[in-house]
Amino acid sequence: MKVAVLGVGLTKFGELWDKSLTDLLAESQRAALRDADLKPTDIDTIFTGNMCAKSFANQGNLGALAAQVLNINVPSTVLGGECASGGLALRAAISAIESGFAKVVLVNGVEKMTDVSSVQATTGLMAAASAEWELFHGATFPSLIAMVARLYMDRYGLTREELAAVSVQNHENGALNPYAHLQRAITKEHVLNSPMVADPLTLFDCSPVSDGAASVIVAREDVAKKLGKDCVFVVGSGQATDKLVLTERDDLLTWKANQLAAQAAYEMAGIGPQDIDIAELHDGFSIVQILSFEDLGFCKKGEGGKKIARGQTSLRSDQPINTSGGLKSRGHPVGATGVAQIVEVVNQLRGRCGQRQVDGARIGLTHNVGGAGSSVVVHIFQRGGTSRRGK
Amino acid sequence: MKVAVLGVGLTKFGELWDKSLTDLLAESQRAALRDADLKPTDIDTIFTGNMCAKSFANQGNLGALAAQVLNINVPSTVLGGECASGGLALRAAISAIESGFAKVVLVNGVEKMTDVSSVQATTGLMAAASAEWELFHGATFPSLIAMVARLYMDRYGLTREELAAVSVQNHENGALNPYAHLQRAITKEHVLNSPMVADPLTLFDCSPVSDGAASVIVAREDVAKKLGKDCVFVVGSGQATDKLVLTERDDLLTWKANQLAAQAAYEMAGIGPQDIDIAELHDGFSIVQILSFEDLGFCKKGEGGKKIARGQTSLRSDQPINTSGGLKSRGHPVGATGVAQIVEVVNQLRGRCGQRQVDGARIGLTHNVGGAGSSVVVHIFQRGGTSRRGK
Repeated sequence: MKVAVLGVGLTKFGELWDKSLTDLLAESQRAALRDADLKPTDIDTIFTGNMCAKSFANQGNLGALAAQVLNINVPSTVLGGECASGGLALRAAISAIESGFAKVVLVNGVEKMTDVSSVQATTGLMAAASAEWELFHGATFPSLIAMVARLYMDRYGLTREELAAVSVQNHENGALNPYAHLQRAITKEHVLNSPMVADPLTLFDCSPVSDGAASVIVAREDVAKKLGKDCVFVVGSGQATDKLVLTERDDLLTWKANQLAAQAAYEMAGIGPQDIDIAELHDGFSIVQILSFEDLGFCKKGEGGKKIARGQTSLRSDQPINTSGGLKSRGHPVGATGVAQIVEVVNQLRGRCGQRQVDGARIGLTHNVGGAGSSVVVHIFQRGGTSRRGK
Repeated sequence: MKVAVLGVGLTKFGELWDKSLTDLLAESQRAALRDADLKPTDIDTIFTGNMCAKSFANQGNLGALAAQVLNINVPSTVLGGECASGGLALRAAISAIESGFAKVVLVNGVEKMTDVSSVQATTGLMAAASAEWELFHGATFPSLIAMVARLYMDRYGLTREELAAVSVQNHENGALNPYAHLQRAITKEHVLNSPMVADPLTLFDCSPVSDGAASVIVAREDVAKKLGKDCVFVVGSGQATDKLVLTERDDLLTWKANQLAAQAAYEMAGIGPQDIDIAELHDGFSIVQILSFEDLGFCKKGEGGKKIARGQTSLRSDQPINTSGGLKSRGHPVGATGVAQIVEVVNQLRGRCGQRQVDGARIGLTHNVGGAGSSVVVHIFQRGGTSRRGK
């Protein structure tokens, strides 16, 4: 499997009061077309990841909307896996290309979240959990993840300070990303002293509510060659699901869907975690980055938090994670996140990340989660040559 | 392209007060597995079409939910194209099979609509139109389609009585379908004298708000052969989009996405409308069935209404349309509709439709629309042998 990335684009993430859902979609689509040096009529299929447009903007049918913005009539479909929707849109594009349904595909992720109240946002996002077994009992998403964090701290002896280090590191990277919603560095004290959301998680353990869109254009390898492009390729794709209801899981701290999705992606790419130069992991909450770092095989279960706290995944380390700033600092317009992760990895592999560039990065991974680990999609990208780490 | 249908299943459609979204999904999934004589662990991928679960039941992440119900951890994704979501789920399945991503795929459509008020339902369904240019100005979906109907009657001289014949015919078929929401025959007078919804459309020109789910299991041809199945095959798939906003269209009475999607499906199948024995057309409103009948090439533009009114598409005619009762009588749980259409066509081609069976049907078509013709997906099915109509 080898699908070429022809171009990427995104909007600035943030509280974009002056931009509508349509504006965001139009802006990121145009940016990707410009980057790929293509016209709208070169696109023959569109897939768009979105979670909340219907609940937050009364707007569904984003497939038709995305095509309308470009004045084309191509097959255009919305992919839903809540916060994993963006990653699923890329997976649908790969499938369409490999099956012969499509040649040049535009992949979007978009979300407009800041036009609704906090209560509406919290309830809307809770749709990723179980309405019957979790929402009904008053649980919010942060409260569910807080229980996971508490258990992890208890079982593996992770301190509150070590947990806080995840957000500090992500903001360190995000401070170098002009597209980031929260483009500034923070200290451990900021995290510890920020308002409590759900014990032990404070405001700075949680990704922000953001507006934004991201787009990627992919094509068959031969199409890319004809265009004379020096491309990044998608070399692995994996997806899995797990019980929606947290209490039905075998173990709250090992997310089976993380493991299965990563395993499938590694297998398809013919590599392992040791070969990954850079990775964008889904840090909707600080603890989720730790769990996922372990589930994806970057270290043993229980060691992830301490490894991150020791700086072993920072920008200048051997294993940089979330060079974009992650969901925490770049922002988390939920349906757009998975595609924004891809934009970052592709730009890193192309050497276009300026101050936050990881020298010599050749193989990158994106990890996108919907719900509390219930929907996971992992992609692996490669640019010619060998990985910094040996492959 | 040849993908085999191994099994189909559906719930009764209706106002199912005693069944939750999860119950519906579980029931149709089990029915399809039983029909295919497969175990949940035989399924390696799931695609589910849904429109309103988040807005009407606070439940998203239906991918994980569908897999959880079967206690499997497979890739499971939600497809969104509003009322066309079900058809898009089958298209995603075909793509996944043809690309090698999947071997045995479960396709679902599900909707639970009767737990919310009429106002919530009308507003929720309006998400298929444009929030900025239509909803904002107070338009409802019936009011938009009513303008289309008025224009058609004016331009092509269709009488109110002729328009009513569409619903009468669909109810005639639905009366023979034990799964139908409104399983009873009606007269032209019922339609004409029912409450006005949006002039000229009365209540009986509009499909009902229904609960229901439908499932289909598809597989690679070689897998079907190994199982020794005498299968119906999917031989054509086409999808297209058109401007979301009705006023941006070139012509309100020719729906470009209808034409493009059908053209692509005919081309893939190597046949034309003259070869189609039976078809399930998207009759969300009576006028939409007429427009679509024409757009798909069954007759010239402007002649569809009169042809249907003359009984030339009735069950015992040469060209039976909506043998299931259509959206009007079988019911329209929006995300489930596209899959329910497929269930009907497959059962017709297998000769399992009892009193409403069309003898000798070999080639069938499903036509599924999201929005006012803005998202369209068409599939063509065939069972060995030649069509009644010559192919």
